[in-house]
Amino acid sequence: MPNSFSIQLPQIVEEITKNYEAEEIFFTKEGLTFPNRQKIIEILKDIRRLMFPGYFGNETLTGSHPEHYAGYNLMHLHEQLKYQILAALSYSEGISTESPALQEKSEQYCLHFFNQLAHIQKLLLKDVQAAFDGDPAAKSKEEVIFSYPGLFAIFVYRIAHELYLLDVPFIPRIMTEHAHSYTGIDINAGATIGEYFFMDHGTGIVIGETTIIGNNVKIYQGVTLGALSTRSGQQLKNVKRHPTIEDNVTIYSNASILGGETVIGAGSIIGGNAFIIESVPPNTKVTLKNPELTFKGSNSSCSDWEI
Amino acid sequence: MPNSFSIQLPQIVEEITKNYEAEEIFFTKEGLTFPNRQKIIEILKDIRRLMFPGYFGNETLTGSHPEHYAGYNLMHLHEQLKYQILAALSYSEGISTESPALQEKSEQYCLHFFNQLAHIQKLLLKDVQAAFDGDPAAKSKEEVIFSYPGLFAIFVYRIAHELYLLDVPFIPRIMTEHAHSYTGIDINAGATIGEYFFMDHGTGIVIGETTIIGNNVKIYQGVTLGALSTRSGQQLKNVKRHPTIEDNVTIYSNASILGGETVIGAGSIIGGNAFIIESVPPNTKVTLKNPELTFKGSNSSCSDWEI
Amino acid sequence: MPNSFSIQLPQIVEEITKNYEAEEIFFTKEGLTFPNRQKIIEILKDIRRLMFPGYFGNETLTGSHPEHYAGYNLMHLHEQLKYQILAALSYSEGISTESPALQEKSEQYCLHFFNQLAHIQKLLLKDVQAAFDGDPAAKSKEEVIFSYPGLFAIFVYRIAHELYLLDVPFIPRIMTEHAHSYTGIDINAGATIGEYFFMDHGTGIVIGETTIIGNNVKIYQGVTLGALSTRSGQQLKNVKRHPTIEDNVTIYSNASILGGETVIGAGSIIGGNAFIIESVPPNTKVTLKNPELTFKGSNSSCSDWEI
Repeated sequence: MPNSFSIQLPQIVEEITKNYEAEEIFFTKEGLTFPNRQKIIEILKDIRRLMFPGYFGNETLTGSHPEHYAGYNLMHLHEQLKYQILAALSYSEGISTESPALQEKSEQYCLHFFNQLAHIQKLLLKDVQAAFDGDPAAKSKEEVIFSYPGLFAIFVYRIAHELYLLDVPFIPRIMTEHAHSYTGIDINAGATIGEYFFMDHGTGIVIGETTIIGNNVKIYQGVTLGALSTRSGQQLKNVKRHPTIEDNVTIYSNASILGGETVIGAGSIIGGNAFIIESVPPNTKVTLKNPELTFKGSNSSCSDWEI
Repeated sequence: MPNSFSIQLPQIVEEITKNYEAEEIFFTKEGLTFPNRQKIIEILKDIRRLMFPGYFGNETLTGSHPEHYAGYNLMHLHEQLKYQILAALSYSEGISTESPALQEKSEQYCLHFFNQLAHIQKLLLKDVQAAFDGDPAAKSKEEVIFSYPGLFAIFVYRIAHELYLLDVPFIPRIMTEHAHSYTGIDINAGATIGEYFFMDHGTGIVIGETTIIGNNVKIYQGVTLGALSTRSGQQLKNVKRHPTIEDNVTIYSNASILGGETVIGAGSIIGGNAFIIESVPPNTKVTLKNPELTFKGSNSSCSDWEI
Repeated sequence: MPNSFSIQLPQIVEEITKNYEAEEIFFTKEGLTFPNRQKIIEILKDIRRLMFPGYFGNETLTGSHPEHYAGYNLMHLHEQLKYQILAALSYSEGISTESPALQEKSEQYCLHFFNQLAHIQKLLLKDVQAAFDGDPAAKSKEEVIFSYPGLFAIFVYRIAHELYLLDVPFIPRIMTEHAHSYTGIDINAGATIGEYFFMDHGTGIVIGETTIIGNNVKIYQGVTLGALSTRSGQQLKNVKRHPTIEDNVTIYSNASILGGETVIGAGSIIGGNAFIIESVPPNTKVTLKNPELTFKGSNSSCSDWEI
C-alpha cells in the first residue's frame, strides 16, 4: 500500500496550517495570551471552598482560626484571579500583559470583586435556606450544599455576574458554561437575580442575558426565560430580550416565558408546560387549560402513530 | 492608588469569618468530619469496574481467575465505603468516629450493602438487555455498557437506593447528583424501580423520591415523574407526592406525569409532551389531541412574534 | 457480632463470579482487548487543541511555525487513534490485535480519517461564525470557541461521524456520549448535518441516527429530532426513523419533530414547543395556536391542583 501516513502527513499539515493562517483568531496576536480555562475553573473551586469550608476540599472542619483559613485562601485566590483578568484584558484590548496600566486595571477589578465576596456569601446562605425550605426531599442544609445542582449554578452565576458587571471579557462566560456543563442549568452572567432563589432539579433551565428576577423566586427543571426571536442576531445586542419575573413567583417545570416586555407579576404561579409571551398580572395562577389528550384502549386500530 | 489588596484584606477576612460564625453549618462541630464527596465518586467508579470488568479500568479482559479480581476489589471497596458511612453517621448524629458503637453500625450497614451487590449486578445485566432490545441505534450490548447514559444513571440509582434504604445520610444524594451531573438524569435515591428498565437519551428525566415504577418500563428524554405542587416544602416530607407507573409502560419524550395518587396502568403508552395529572387505566394509549398549530407562509404580515 | 465482612466475603465473591461467567460479555474473549474510553476522550481533546490552537492547552499563541505544532500533534494523534481503532476492530471481529490484516485495516481507516481533518476544521470555523452571527449574547468568536457547548457538541459529532461512516465500532458512540455528558446535547454519530450549524443553549437537544439536516440550520435547547415509535426496537435498525430538515430552517426551543418521512421544507420556522409529526412545506412558519392557558386570581377557590 503506497499511501502511508508519513507520506501523506506533509499535505495534511499544509492544509491545517492554511486554515490557521486564514483565520484571525489563531496564532495572530504575538505577545498576547488567552486566559486559561482550566485555571478559571480551579478559581471557582477555590472560591467555593472559601465560601463553604469543609465541604469540598480536604481541610478538616474545625472551629479554630477560621480567619487563617479565609486569609490564606483569599491571598491565593487574588493572585490567581488577577492573572486571569490581566490575560483576558490583554487579549481583548491587544495590549501586552507587561503594560503597567493594564496591570493596574486588573488590580482594581480584583479589589472590587473581592470586596463583594462576603456579600455574595451571605446571598448564597439565603439560597441554601431557600432550597432546604422549598424541597420536601431535602434532608438537611448540608445536603443542599454538598449536592444540589441548583446551588452550584447560582453560586457560579453570582461570582460570574460580578465580573460581567466589570466588563471582564471571556471569564464570566467560561464560568457560567462550566456550571451549565456540570448542572444542565444555563444562566447568562448578565442576568439579574434577587435573594432567596431556588432552582429544583434544574436540568434544562435557561435564563437569558437580560432577564430580571426578583426575590424569593422558585423555578423548576426545563424552564426557559428566553427571547421571542433572535433571528436578527448581533443586531439585538444590548436590547432587553428576556422577561422580568417579580418577587415571590413560582414557575413549574418546562414552562417557557419569552420576550423582553413580558412581566410576571409578583406572587404569581406559572403552571408546568405553560407557554407565555405576554405579561401576567400579580397574584395570578396560570395553568394549561384542561390538557388536550386522547385516550384509546391500546387494542384500538386507529393508531398509525405512537409518540 | 492607596487601596491595595493587602490593605483591604483584613476587612474582607473579618466579614467572611463573621459569615462563618453566624452559620451553624460551618466550623461548628469539633472532632466531627464530613464524608468526602470525591472519595464517594471514586467508590462508585470502583463498584462499576467490579460489576462490568474490563470496561472502565486498565485491567485486561481475561477469563482466568475472575474471583481474584472480584475479591481484591471487594476488600478495597469495603474499606473505603465503611469509612465514608462512618463519617456520614458521625456528622449526622454528632458522635465521634472513634465511637465503637458507631463503628459497629457502619460495619453492619456495609455488610448489608455488600450482600446486595450480586443481586444488583443481575438487575443491571437485565437493564443492559432492555437498552439493547429497546434501541434500534444500539450496535451491541458492549456499546450500551460503555456509553449509554441511561445505564450509568440506573447503575448509580441502584447502588444509592440500597444506602437510602439503610438511612445513610448524605451519601445516596451525593451519588445520584453525580449521576445527574454526568447524564442529565435526576433519579432520587428514594424512588422504587423494577427490573428491565430503560431510559433512552435521558437528558432532563426527573424521577421523584416517592415514585414507584414496575418492571419493563421505558422512558424517554425530558420525562418528569413529579409532584403536583411542592409549595408546602418540608411539610410534605414523607408524603407520597410522585406517581406510580405499573409494568410494561412506555413514556415518550417530554411527557409529565404528576401527583402521588396518579397511577399509569400496566401496558399503557404515554405520548410525547403529554401532561398528565390523573390516573390512566391499564392498556391505554394517551396522546396529544391533534396538536394545535398555526401554519403561515413566512411572507405573511401577521407575525409579531416568532418563537 | 458473628457476621464480619471477611467471613461473608467468599460467598459474595462466588455470586459475583457466577454473574461474570453467566454473561458472554465479560472475561470471555481471551487475547482480545477493548478500546480504552479514557484514551478516546483524550484523543478528542488533542484533536480540539489541533483545530483550535491556543484555546485549550498550555501552548502559547504564537505566529511562528504553526506547521511544527500541527505536525507534532498529528503524529501523536495518529499513534493514539490507530491503536484504539485496532482494539475496537479486534474485539468486534474476534481477531487478535497482532493480526497484520487488522493492523493494515486500522492504518487505512486512520489515513482516511486524517485526510478529512482539514476539511472538518473548515466546517467548524463556519460553525463558529454561525454561533457568533446567531446569538446576540455572543461577545466574540473567541468566546464561542472557549465556551459554547453547541460548538463542542458539533465538533465531537463531526469527528465521530467520520469514524461512523467507516463503520468503526464503539468509538463514535463513546465520543458522542462524552459530548452528551458534557453538554446535554445528544447527537447520534450517524446523523447527517450540513454547514453553518448552530445550537443555542443546547441542553436536551436530541438528534437521532437517521436525521438529515441541511445548511444554515439553527436549533434551540430541548429540540427533539426523533422517531415516532421505537417499540419494535432492533427490528427498526437501518430504517430511516428520524426527520429531514432542509436548508435555512430555525427550530425554537423544546419543539419536537418526529418520524422518518417528516420533512421540514427549506426556509421554514418552527415555533417553541411545537409538536410536529407531518411534513411542513418550504417557507412556512409553524407556531403553537394561541396557547390554551387558564388565568385565575390566586385567591380563587377552584384550585385543587397547582402545577
